[in-house]
Formats: sequence, C-alpha cells, structure tokens
Amino acid sequence: MKTISFLRGTAQVMFQPSAIGGVLMLAGIFWGAIEGGHAEVALGAVVGLVVATLTGYILALPQEEGEEGLWGFNGVLVGAAMMTFLGSTPLSWVALVLASAMSTWVREGLNRVGARHKVNSFTFPFVLCTWLFLAAARVLTGLDEVSLAHPMLPSVHHYDIAATPPDSVLEGVRWVLRGVGQIMLQDSWVAGFLFVVGLLFSSPWAALWALVGSAVGTYGALLYGASEVAVSSGLYGFSPALTAIALGAVFYTPSWRSAIWALLGAVATLFAQAALNVFLEPLGLPALTAPFCLTTWLFLLPLIRLDRHKQTDEDHSSWHKKKVTNQQ
Amino acid sequence: MKTISFLRGTAQVMFQPSAIGGVLMLAGIFWGAIEGGHAEVALGAVVGLVVATLTGYILALPQEEGEEGLWGFNGVLVGAAMMTFLGSTPLSWVALVLASAMSTWVREGLNRVGARHKVNSFTFPFVLCTWLFLAAARVLTGLDEVSLAHPMLPSVHHYDIAATPPDSVLEGVRWVLRGVGQIMLQDSWVAGFLFVVGLLFSSPWAALWALVGSAVGTYGALLYGASEVAVSSGLYGFSPALTAIALGAVFYTPSWRSAIWALLGAVATLFAQAALNVFLEPLGLPALTAPFCLTTWLFLLPLIRLDRHKQTDEDHSSWHKKKVTNQQ
Amino acid sequence: MKTISFLRGTAQVMFQPSAIGGVLMLAGIFWGAIEGGHAEVALGAVVGLVVATLTGYILALPQEEGEEGLWGFNGVLVGAAMMTFLGSTPLSWVALVLASAMSTWVREGLNRVGARHKVNSFTFPFVLCTWLFLAAARVLTGLDEVSLAHPMLPSVHHYDIAATPPDSVLEGVRWVLRGVGQIMLQDSWVAGFLFVVGLLFSSPWAALWALVGSAVGTYGALLYGASEVAVSSGLYGFSPALTAIALGAVFYTPSWRSAIWALLGAVATLFAQAALNVFLEPLGLPALTAPFCLTTWLFLLPLIRLDRHKQTDEDHSSWHKKKVTNQQ
Repeated sequence: MKTISFLRGTAQVMFQPSAIGGVLMLAGIFWGAIEGGHAEVALGAVVGLVVATLTGYILALPQEEGEEGLWGFNGVLVGAAMMTFLGSTPLSWVALVLASAMSTWVREGLNRVGARHKVNSFTFPFVLCTWLFLAAARVLTGLDEVSLAHPMLPSVHHYDIAATPPDSVLEGVRWVLRGVGQIMLQDSWVAGFLFVVGLLFSSPWAALWALVGSAVGTYGALLYGASEVAVSSGLYGFSPALTAIALGAVFYTPSWRSAIWALLGAVATLFAQAALNVFLEPLGLPALTAPFCLTTWLFLLPLIRLDRHKQTDEDHSSWHKKKVTNQQ
Repeated sequence: MKTISFLRGTAQVMFQPSAIGGVLMLAGIFWGAIEGGHAEVALGAVVGLVVATLTGYILALPQEEGEEGLWGFNGVLVGAAMMTFLGSTPLSWVALVLASAMSTWVREGLNRVGARHKVNSFTFPFVLCTWLFLAAARVLTGLDEVSLAHPMLPSVHHYDIAATPPDSVLEGVRWVLRGVGQIMLQDSWVAGFLFVVGLLFSSPWAALWALVGSAVGTYGALLYGASEVAVSSGLYGFSPALTAIALGAVFYTPSWRSAIWALLGAVATLFAQAALNVFLEPLGLPALTAPFCLTTWLFLLPLIRLDRHKQTDEDHSSWHKKKVTNQQ
Repeated sequence: MKTISFLRGTAQVMFQPSAIGGVLMLAGIFWGAIEGGHAEVALGAVVGLVVATLTGYILALPQEEGEEGLWGFNGVLVGAAMMTFLGSTPLSWVALVLASAMSTWVREGLNRVGARHKVNSFTFPFVLCTWLFLAAARVLTGLDEVSLAHPMLPSVHHYDIAATPPDSVLEGVRWVLRGVGQIMLQDSWVAGFLFVVGLLFSSPWAALWALVGSAVGTYGALLYGASEVAVSSGLYGFSPALTAIALGAVFYTPSWRSAIWALLGAVATLFAQAALNVFLEPLGLPALTAPFCLTTWLFLLPLIRLDRHKQTDEDHSSWHKKKVTNQQ
C-alpha cells in the first residue's frame, strides 16, 4: 500500500497521475470548503479518497491502476458531494463510506463494459453512486437533504434571471476559475486557481484546456441566456472543462484538429449540462459530472482518427499507459 | 462528395437507399410544412440533411455508408424537429447545425456499440441529440421552446377526450396516412401519401408495412382509449409504422412468420409510445421515434430465426448490404 | 413440452430450478392473493407463467433453459404485477398476455447483451415490460390504473411517518417474512413463509440468505428512517433478499468472504430501493425488482474473485449450469 496511490487520487479527477498535483488540488478543496464555511466537505473528500483507495487494495484489484491513483478519484468526488448536499450526521458518514467504497468496484465493473467499446467510465461511478444516495435521502428521514434543490417541474422560474456579461475583465476571469473550481464542487475562484496550478505541474496542455473549456461553457451559457446564478458560480464551466481536457489533452495528441474537436466537445457539453439540469429538476438532484461523461462518450465512441499518421486503432478505454509514458 | 448521398438521406429514415424516394419524401415534408404554415420546418430538414451528410465527409467516415444516404437521415429529422419545437432565431439555427452534425458521429459511435450486439442505432442518434437540445431550451432563455408541451405530472388530463372511431372510412384512411406523415413530424395526410409513394419506388413491401403499422398503432390506440387529438393526428401511428417496416420488410425476409412478428412489433410499439409519452410528460418533451427504436431493439436483440432455411446467424446491425443487394 | 418447465418457472424467480419449490411458491402466491382479496393476482401469475413458457417453445429458444424453468419466471411476475396494479378487464388481460410473452424474448435479447459482460438479465425483463404497460395505462383510458400511486414530486410527504421498531419480536419476524413475500408482490407473511420453505427444498443457503437479506433491508430502512407503511409491509425487504440470494448462494460459493459481499449487497440494495422509489415518484410507478437488478449488476460486473483457490475466471451470465451441478 503506497502513499502515492492516495496522493495521486485527487489529481486523477482531471486525468493526472501526479502526487504534487493531487496535493495542490486537495489544498484547493480545503480552501474552497473553509472559505464557504463547510469544512466537512473537505473532510468528506479526504475520507472518500482514503476509503475508495483502500477498497481497491482490499479487493485486490490490479495494482498498477491503484498506484496511478485511479482507485481514489471517484471517492474524492463522492465524499465532497455527499457532504455538500447532505447534513453531516453519523448516518450520513456511514452512507458516505459505503458510497465511496462502492465507487471503486462500480468503476471496475463499468470499465470492463466500456473497454469492449474502447471507452472509460470516467467519473460516472461517482455520479451513479452519489445519485443513488442523494435520491434515497429524499425518503429516508435519517439523511438530511437540506442542501438539495427542491423538486420542481422544469421551466424558466420567476426567480431565474438571464445572466448579463461580467462587470469587469477580472470578474470574467473569476467566473472561468470558478468553473474549474466546481470540478471538485467548490464555488471558489481561488480553488479553481489552485487546480490549474496543480495541472500545470503534470500537463500544461491540460491546464490550458481546463481554462478554455470552462470559458467556452461559461460564455456559451451567457450567450444562450442561462441563469445569472448558475453562470457566475461556474456551474456551466466545470463539465465543459473536463470534456476539453479529455479531448484536447488526454485522449488525442494536441494538434489543431484535436483542438477543434475539444472546442466542439465543450460547446456540446454546455447544452448537455442544461439538458441534464432539466431532466433532474423533478427529482431535485444535481447533474454532477454527468454532462461531461455523456458528451465525452459521444465524442470518443466513434473512434474518430484525428492524427493522420497513426498506424494503430484508437482506444480510449484508459489513460493510464498514455500518462505513464508522458511522465517519464 | 456525391449528390446522391444527399438525395438518398431522406429516404433512409424509412430504410430506403433511394434518391427518387428521397426527393418524394422531401416533397412531402415541404407540403406538410407549408400546409401547416411553418415553412421553416422544411428548411430545417434540408439544412439538417446537408450538415449531417457533410459532417460524414469531413470526418472521413466509411464512404459506402455515405453514398447510401446513411449519414444524413438523422440530420433530416433533427432539423425538422428543432424547427417544429423551437422558434426560428439565429441562436436556434446555430443549435440546429450543431445537433445535426453531432447526429452523424453519434450514429457512428452507437452503431459501433450496437454492432457487438448485432443491432443498429436506427434513428436513436436523432432522438438523443434532439432531446438534449430541446431539454436545454427549457433553461436557456436564448432558445424559445414555445411549441413544447408544458411539463406536467402524468395522468389523464381533463382536456383529454378518449378517441372515438372516425366519422367516415375516408377519414379513417387519413388517420393512417397522417401516422405515416408523422414519421417526418408532418401532421398531414398528403405528406404521408407522398411518403408511401416514395416507398413504393424502392420497396412495395415497405410501403405496405408502413400503412399496416400505422393502422395497427392508430386503431390499437383507439381501442385502448388514447386521446382523440393524438390518435387522429397520427401520433400513435408513426413509430409502429417504422417498427413494422423494420421487422416486416427490412431485417426479415417477408413471409407469414415475419408478418406475425411485424404485427406483434407494431402492437408493442403502440404501448411503448403511450409509456414514453408518460415518462417524458414531467419534462414536456416529445417521444420522437424512441418508441420505435426501443421496441425494434427488443424484437431484434434475441436474434429470433424466422426463416427455417437460413444457414447463417441473424445479424441486424446494418441494412446497408441487404438494400444494396435488393437494389441491384 | 414438459410439465416440469412450467412448474420450475415460479421457483426460478429465486434462482431455483425446483418443481417442488415452484409449487410451494405458487401456493404462497395463491394464499397471499386470496388473503388480500384479489384472487386475480394469482390467476395473473399462472397465466403469465404459462404464456411466457409457451412463448419459449413457439420461438424455439434453446430447450435446456426452458426445461430449467427459465422461460417462465419473468412471466409469473409480469402477470402478478399487472393484476396487482391494473383493474381486471378484457383489455388488461390482453395486455398481460402480450407483456408476458414479450418478457421471454426480451430476456433472450438482454441475456445476449449481458453475456458479453458476463452478467444475466435477472428479473429485468419483467421490470421493463411491466413498466411499459403500467406507464401506458396512465394515458390509455381502456386500462384502469387505479392501484398505481398518484404521480407526485418526490419529498417526505405529510402522511409519511418514519417507521418505529416493531411491537414484538414476532411482529419483527413477520416484517422480514413479508419482505420475502413481496418478492412475488404479496403483502403476506404466510406467503413469505411458504417461499422460504420452497427454497429450503432446493437450497438451504438460499433460504437463509432470503431471510437475512430481507432483514438487512427492512431494519436498515428502519434505522435510516423510511416510512412506517413501506417498512412494515416488506417493501424494503424483497429486493435486498434477492440480492443476498444471488451474491450469497448462487453466483459465489458460500464462504465468509461471499457472506460479507452479500451483506454489503443487501445494504446497497436498500439505498437503491429508496432511490428508485424517488426516481419513479413523478411517474407514480413501482420500482418492482429494479433495485435488486441494478445493485446485483454493480456487484457482479467487476468480476471480483472471492475464492482464492479458483483457477477459472468468474462468469455470472447464467446460473443454469451451476444449479444443475448443485442439484445432482
């Protein structure tokens, strides 16, 4: 059991097998959580990371993945999300531990399914496990779902005000950084800044695409008239940022072709975000990173070749080997 | 880039690689759209067809499929549907272009998944892309979703009147033709008539099954007490018509066995239509051709052999080669 | 066509190819249905069983599965569920026959998909076919959906009272037995008792895990504050019971490792049950055995090895051969 497995876990949310990146991102989570007055979110992230990583050891899953931090990244998100939306009680912590542990073997199972179609499960194990427990909280009075949205029939509600452009360039930059921060559920531009710095250590391309993706999602949503609150707090930025990293810097070699593909992916993710918000509104559940997962699958499944010189078939079922090679 | 790829696209909605059929069906779309006072729907269909087909060329997908018109048929439907349910504005046309283009590579991706299970994605890429953008329109004020139904909790509503039999045989025939017309979102018996004529040019069996399927869906819905408006405007006919064409004339050689299978499929599709209407009612989204896709998958996935003389295994992943053979 | 195919069908709901078990379980269904004053539920189960099994013969599906009773078990549940939630009319019986027949070929199709990922479709064909027809009943006035819940936006409703512990040990045992009874939609501890006795004839381990799974789900729901009515009538027990049988006695050899796995599965199923109740509340549809299917897939897909001495890979796509071997 190596410490580095744990440290790398957080950075793998953004596809980086980097211990330094992981520590910087954990710092960002702590900053955002404490700034927002809910330190339990950061604690949840750490517990989720540890439980999910330990689960991989206990189940004796293939070691190489664990050492790259691939067992823990869903757990980080499960832990942060459970403490973001549920009250912190003994029963919710038990649920958090179970959901984090499940995310590890759900990932293993979904990756086996995806590998046949040459795609990865990404953060969908996090999405699935968290949806189950948050939905359950609606009817289990032992879980306090006070921070979940009220279930409603979808429409533009009277209190939704269409976003207007930011007051200043600086505020506009903060929107984009908040979009990166929301990848880990932090409504904090400082957290987003720390995440970008964390990415820079292992992959400058990933850092660039995180910012570009968040900007495309945020300003696309502004153009299409999404709500002020959602746009300015980065809720239209985080999933497009992840899609842009995946398409622009991980599964395709950076080039002008893959840049166009990543931009298209970020735009499509913005609409998927709006759509999933609507699908989930009658349940009052958050979309989490589902818009990223869905869109990235739709862009990877056709196995489009963007590099004309390649001799081998595309295979997007893992970023493990690619990253190890990049890291030398 | 061949003109015939574009012309055949429209006819491929009903599994026909026929340029003449495609032109006649486009004529039907124009008739229905202009008759209904919304010419932009026909324009949307043409733009969707062109964009989706061009996307196949740009992405360098396998040429043979493109020449058969298989890149464009989802785009025709995306374009018609986007302009049916959304207001015509610059922002909605941009969304239409993106959704149509996406339908081409989403089809490629879903076909790869389906091929492993020996089924095709049919018009599901259209359904998926259109659902995403229509749902997004609910919260993006830049898209005007004025023609979408109001989201409601499902039940028989006070203004739903159960359908009564048509006043005359002629009116009864019009219901069935409207069912065929609704395949391309046209509430017009003339459009349906032109579609049937288009089918006759390439496959009389397909023309017959389109009519039989629409009749089974329409009169089955009448028998089970569906709403007057839905039944008389063909909304219970179009998906059963597509299922009946698929099972009765495309994926199985016409015989009395496959005829029974196609009839069962049409009946099951009628219930799937009612069910999907209910599933989507809280979101106020249309079922589009999802009832056809779902039911036809359920009838093809078991790979039931209906022809005792066949030596090879069933494979329903493509109708490309079958049609080319039929067409000599 | 062998009588034993029909008799074994009912027992296969709980993975047992046992004619004696099947007869005892049918007796349980009759007891529960008559006790509850709705004998048509038992009749529906028998009709569903016969129709689904005959469908396998007519479609000439592989005989060995039929002889094990694997064609009929979804039909039993379809028939019981359709008559539980819909009024008994000529139109609903026609729908019941169609849904039961479909369940057989839907199972064949879904098993083909699942086999590639080494999992089985379990009772999901029942869930899918029943959902389609129950949802359709909401808008088809010819089907009377009077026993379905009213569609509502999910929340803890004013009439939901969190369960309190049972008044006596005996009442506590009845809750657990009702959980087993609900596997076949019977709110009756006597029915549950007969099911357990039926299991004892072919597999004492399955009988034990049915009780343990139901107890875990029921008392877990009590701990987490689920509603009184749901907990005491066994609605949190039946899916965990099925998961526990599957993981503890069918797909893994009983051992202390598989016991922990089965317990974890039962706990996870309880949350999946609560979650699916919430997902379906806007539609007013019952979760049926979907929580069991979903959770058991998530626990089997990773192909976790629980037996260190095994040389071969796990394959959970069928319990047919295992059971035949066990039965010698």
